[in-house]
This record gives sequence, C-alpha cells and structure tokens, in this order.
Amino acid sequence: MLSKKTAAKTARPAKKTPKIAISVEPAKGGVTAAAGFAAAGIKAGIKASKKPDLAAVVSDRPAAAAGAFTTNAIRASSVDWCETLLPSAKIRAILCNAGCANACTGDQGVRDTAGMAALAGVELGVPQKSVLVASTGVIGKFLPMERIAAAMPKLAAALSSTVTAGTAFAQAIMTTDLIKKESAVRVTVGKETFLIGGTTKGSGMIQPNMATMLCFITTDADIDSALLNTVVKRVVNRTFNNLTVDGDTSTNDMVLVMANGASGAVVKGRGETLAAFEAGLFEVCNDLCKKIAADGEGATKRVEINVKGAKTEADAQLAAKSVANSNLTKCALFGNDPNWGRIACAVGYPGAKFSKQKMSIDLCGIRVFNNLQPVAFDQKKAHVLMKKKVVCIDIDLGLGDKTATAHTCDFSYNYVKINAEYHT
Amino acid sequence: MLSKKTAAKTARPAKKTPKIAISVEPAKGGVTAAAGFAAAGIKAGIKASKKPDLAAVVSDRPAAAAGAFTTNAIRASSVDWCETLLPSAKIRAILCNAGCANACTGDQGVRDTAGMAALAGVELGVPQKSVLVASTGVIGKFLPMERIAAAMPKLAAALSSTVTAGTAFAQAIMTTDLIKKESAVRVTVGKETFLIGGTTKGSGMIQPNMATMLCFITTDADIDSALLNTVVKRVVNRTFNNLTVDGDTSTNDMVLVMANGASGAVVKGRGETLAAFEAGLFEVCNDLCKKIAADGEGATKRVEINVKGAKTEADAQLAAKSVANSNLTKCALFGNDPNWGRIACAVGYPGAKFSKQKMSIDLCGIRVFNNLQPVAFDQKKAHVLMKKKVVCIDIDLGLGDKTATAHTCDFSYNYVKINAEYHT
Repeated sequence: MLSKKTAAKTARPAKKTPKIAISVEPAKGGVTAAAGFAAAGIKAGIKASKKPDLAAVVSDRPAAAAGAFTTNAIRASSVDWCETLLPSAKIRAILCNAGCANACTGDQGVRDTAGMAALAGVELGVPQKSVLVASTGVIGKFLPMERIAAAMPKLAAALSSTVTAGTAFAQAIMTTDLIKKESAVRVTVGKETFLIGGTTKGSGMIQPNMATMLCFITTDADIDSALLNTVVKRVVNRTFNNLTVDGDTSTNDMVLVMANGASGAVVKGRGETLAAFEAGLFEVCNDLCKKIAADGEGATKRVEINVKGAKTEADAQLAAKSVANSNLTKCALFGNDPNWGRIACAVGYPGAKFSKQKMSIDLCGIRVFNNLQPVAFDQKKAHVLMKKKVVCIDIDLGLGDKTATAHTCDFSYNYVKINAEYHT
Repeated sequence: MLSKKTAAKTARPAKKTPKIAISVEPAKGGVTAAAGFAAAGIKAGIKASKKPDLAAVVSDRPAAAAGAFTTNAIRASSVDWCETLLPSAKIRAILCNAGCANACTGDQGVRDTAGMAALAGVELGVPQKSVLVASTGVIGKFLPMERIAAAMPKLAAALSSTVTAGTAFAQAIMTTDLIKKESAVRVTVGKETFLIGGTTKGSGMIQPNMATMLCFITTDADIDSALLNTVVKRVVNRTFNNLTVDGDTSTNDMVLVMANGASGAVVKGRGETLAAFEAGLFEVCNDLCKKIAADGEGATKRVEINVKGAKTEADAQLAAKSVANSNLTKCALFGNDPNWGRIACAVGYPGAKFSKQKMSIDLCGIRVFNNLQPVAFDQKKAHVLMKKKVVCIDIDLGLGDKTATAHTCDFSYNYVKINAEYHT
C-alpha cells in the first residue's frame, strides 16, 4: 500500500539535492507506532449499539501539536477548544468520543467539552489545557457526561503503547465506518529515524474544507509547534482537502498532530530532515485519505481523480474536486458506465482554466475524450475495468505543469439507504 | 398553483405606488398561450425510445428575444449559437431536439447546430440567423442530421397555435422527465392585457448557474430586446439560479424568451407595465422551477428552502442553495427523518453570515433549532408531515431583511438507479 517508490515521487524535494539519504517506509500500527505514545479505546455507553465509543491517546511527555479545523461556521465546541489551544500549548493527550457530535448544543455543549478535558486531566494527572477533545456522531444531542466520567478510570487503566491499543483507539472513534483506518511510516534521514502514525474516521458528511473529518497523528520526531503547524497545513491542503464522499462539510472535522520528540530526531529549518518529515506526513495522510474514500458510505469502489497540466495548483484542485463531487459521475461509476460526458461536464463548471485543444480524459487508462471531441474506444473493455476496486480518472488540462489528486468513491443505493435511515 | 396573492407578494414594486391596477392570473397552456405563436412536437427518430424528440415554436412576426446561458466552460455549440445572436437579433423560431445534447462534439457539433438553424430557416422561410437552436440528451454523440432534415417538413406541417400544440412541444423536449412542464399567466395592467407562457425540461444534471436547463418562454407583450434581457437576467437569478436537483451544472442549459408584441401592450421604462411584466415572468419561471423540482430524477417529494433574515440577497441565496445541495439533508428528506442537524450543518458551510443568537430553523412549520441549540419538538408529528408531497424548510438567519427561496427535491434510491443505468 505504501511504497518507497510512491514516497519518493510525492516527497517535496529540498532546495538543493540532498546529500543525506532519505527513506520513507511503511510501518505497523497507527497512533501508537511512534515512541512515547499510549492509547486505549473502550465502551462507555455513548453509542446505542454498545460498541466502543471512548478513546484516548497520551504522550509520556509534553508534545508539540498542531491542527487543521473545519471551516463550517456552525461547528462543535470541541473544534473551538482545540483551535484555541493550538499550536502554542504543550499537549499531553487527546480524548475522543463517538456516537454524539456535541454540535449545535449551545452553552451546555461548551461546558461539556471543557468537562471532557477536565475529567481526562484529573484521571491522567495532566493540566486540563493539555488535553485536546474531539467528538463525532449525531448532531444536536448532549454528551452523557456521567457515563463518560464513570468510564474514565477504565480508559486510563487500558492505556498501552502496543499496536493493539492503537487499533482499539481506531475502533472506538468509528461511527458509520465499516473499516478501521490506520497508517504509519518509518522515516530515515541519514542516521536518524523517527515514526509517524495515525488513524482517522469518517464515512459520510465528508468534504473537508481546509480541514477534515477526525484524524489523529502522532510522531516521535522532535519538531517545534510553529513549524509543525506550517507543515500540517501544507500537507492537509494536498490530501484531506482533496477528499470528498458526499460534498457535505461536517461540523466536527479536524486533524490533530502530536510530536513528542521521543526519537531524538530533530526536524527544523529547510533541510533534508524537514523534507523527509513532510514526505512521511504526506504518505500517512494520503494513505488515510484513500482508506476513507474506500470506506465512504455505500461505496463499492474507491476513485482517484488525477489532474495534471494545470496552470495553477488551485485550478488542478478545482477540476479534481468538481469531478469528485459530481453525483452524476459517481452514479455512473457505481453502474460501471464509461459515461465520460459527465466527467467532461464536471471539469467544465467550476471555472478551472484548460486548453480546448489539448484537454484530455482517460478512464481506467483508456483515452475517452480529446480536444473537446469524443474518441472511439472499447466501451466493453472500459465497463469491465470499471468493476475494479480502484478506478482512476486521469485528466490533462493541457496548460501547465501543476497537479492535484482528489479522493472519492462511487455513489450507490446504499449511500441513500444509510442516510435515509441513520437518525430516527 | 398560481394565485393573485403569490403574484402580489413576489412582484417587485414600482418606485411609486401604482395608480393603475395590476393583476397576474393563471392562464392555460405553455409556449402557445401568448398570441402569434405556433408550436409543434414530433418524432424524428433521434431518441432510441422512439418518443417525440423534435420541437419548434414559431412567431408569426419577428420577436425580441433574450436568454440566460449555462456558465459551464464545456458547453454545447447550441448555447454558443444562441448567445451570439441574443439579444440583438430579431427571432422567428426556436428549434429544439431531445435525445442528443450535441455537446463535446467539436467542429462537427458547431456545423450541425448551424445546420439545424439552416434547415428550419429554409422550411419556415425565415433567415437562418432568426432561428435559435437547443439540444438536450446524451453528451458526446453527434446529431443524426439526415433524420432531422427528413423530419423538418412534418414538423412545419404540424405547427399550430392551439394549447395542444404547445403541449406537443413540451413533450418532445423531455429526456428523463416524467411529467411535461408548462406554465402561463395573463397579466392585466389597467386596460392592457398580455400573456406570458412557457415550458421547460430537466430532471437531472440540474444546478443552473446564471442560467438553467432548457426553458422556452413566449409572450405577446411588446418589449424591446435590451429591456427584455435585463428583466430576464433579474428573474432568472431569483428563480432558476436557486434550483438544484443534483448540483451538476449542465453543458446545454438555457432560458430563451421571445416577445412578439402581438397583444399590443407596450412594456417600457420603469412604470407599472414593467412591474407587471416582471411579476408575470417571475410567476411563470417560479412555477416552472417548482415543476422541475417535483419531477427531479428519483424525487418522491418537492422541497422548498425559504431563507429570510439575511444581510444580503447573496447570503440568503448561498444558505438556501447549500441546504438544497446537501446530499445528507436530501436523503433524510427521503427517509422522512427530521434530522435538522444536517440542515444546520449545511447552513454553516457556504459562508453566509448569520446571527448565532437569532438563527432558527423550522421544518414543516415546526421549530427544530434556535440560538444554535436544539429545541424539544414532536418528532413523530414532524415525521408524518414530512411525508407530504411538498416539504418546506424555513430558515431565519436573524440578521437582516433579505430573502431567497431554493427549489429542490429529495434524494432517493431511484436517483442512483436512473443515473447508474442511463448511458450504456
């Protein structure tokens, strides 16, 4: 799934050719992959399904942290809580519950978020303001604070730095997700090595905008919070901001990254170590995006829209996301129908610049559209290729050298079923 | 469906209180309601289903005309043809085919559009450049020009000014539409009377942006093309531009309005007649929007999102359209689920300004959200009310006095089914 080749291709090169060898390799686990992090996920009785619904990840020392947050003006108090603390505060823990978004809950919601941080702080013996809080689930319901308080000792007792504990965390933050989503890499720069690992949840209400669904990443690299913040924003813009399941931007989206320095590898300035850290973080985020797209509500396949030849990166992103959000295109993908007209139509409406002479579209590696004219192609072959678990749409805007990739899934009966029946 | 009350409420008042009585009343028919217009709709063998697929509406004298056109950069040559001619050219006829959009068809597509106008011009004895052309259907296929040429005498012979002929026109322009869509009003200003009637088609790929799906309106009012153009743009912005079925902006959208002056009623300046004309045009466009929403692909109900209390009309439109485009909200509407959290979430992400203290949401007349806090309400009653054929969502942004209404429908299994199986 992750390969050195991919990593090498996607890494931002340092200004000068690096003299020090950099490698980004897949590693095991998620939030506990990096040294000095322990995690747990338990049942606190928040979800009606009685599945695990309360999770924490804790650093054994104060960690630098940074985040990216939903741009939705109606947002949960947990998002406000984290955005106020970051990137300046030193962070010890993230507490996350699933089953209740604690969004649109007014003043009580604000008090409950602070209460979550206070409960975790007391239990873990760390300051309230070193605890980040995240919530996900139904909007407009109050958190069952008594149950959360009652469950806190059990959560603290379950904390462990094993891969299994990381997975328990990943499972306890799921809502309509069918599959847990973890990713980790080992980054080597000369003689130094550090790990970056993370987990994410999200299946519907997914169109992060300068933010994302819930995503928690830990690293044992030593990086100060201001630099971490810059890198996180840059990587999120190239990954989670190009992800969409249904075009709905959630009230609770965020990406939180904690760096505790336990590896001793120092990331700073503009050199090779920073390039390696950014390449590693990109790999983890990009891989988690693919996992969310594959597990999109009702999805039967994952879809990657690769745009090249754009004049600006913004244009590439605009075209890629427009196709990724086209309900008509996504229904055709579900029906394995090489209906390229819908793809061309979606490239046309967001305002991205393209060359009428040189624009082209390839579907599953087959050229289907060129110079704004249809191309004769083997429709049956395309139909068969579209049945694969991953379908690629490659669009060349024919104007420049900027690129972007959008991640999405197809649109099936089940998306409608899940979302017509979710609440009542 | 149309009432004097509605018309009075929605009419833009003239600068001074009008001394002359204005009334806007429902009338029979569509494009042949106004005097001096004849129409026809026949089978030319363009649709695989062998249903009617070629239509024309003809004015007995040169008419002023204006249009609004899709903003999609990948657009059909028919759109370019009409936009080049309008609003300066005097128009005699509109020729429209269904079953083939003649979009993404390059130079041959451009030649075929000009060919359509030439064929109609010869058959009707009018200049080629007095014929507007519209196409709708599958993207990326060439028009069967020989069949169209062969059918032209039959089309001309079928032209008639009866209501039935107008309906034949409305039926021949349908694609995935299940119901023909016509609307007409009789406008009386003092002693003068004129008619405005129109028809539209569209069921999927509907999110007009400064334009719309195909819509043809005729009037026997006497109005010059520059003034007509101004009024059309203003009315389209308040009606078709707030309509969405699936968020996909088509390659072929347009609204075309022909005014032939056959009633003798002169519309000019800023007086009562202009206010009456604009009120009448608004009624026809608004009614046709409702008809498209009700017949949206897979729709089980029509949904009206009324936003008030906005600081600007743009804010009102932004919030209304965001809710109208929220797949999650539309799935909940299909499931008769009073999931107001999704509505609140969709109000939050497009960037429209609202008051956190005064914002409220009513669903089917029941208050469900106030001051960013949940409101206790009768969920069962809401569930039952949501089963009606028309569901209203009323949103008060609590800041100003600007309003907007968006028209849409729910999102059902059948939308997915229709669009997974349409092409191949």
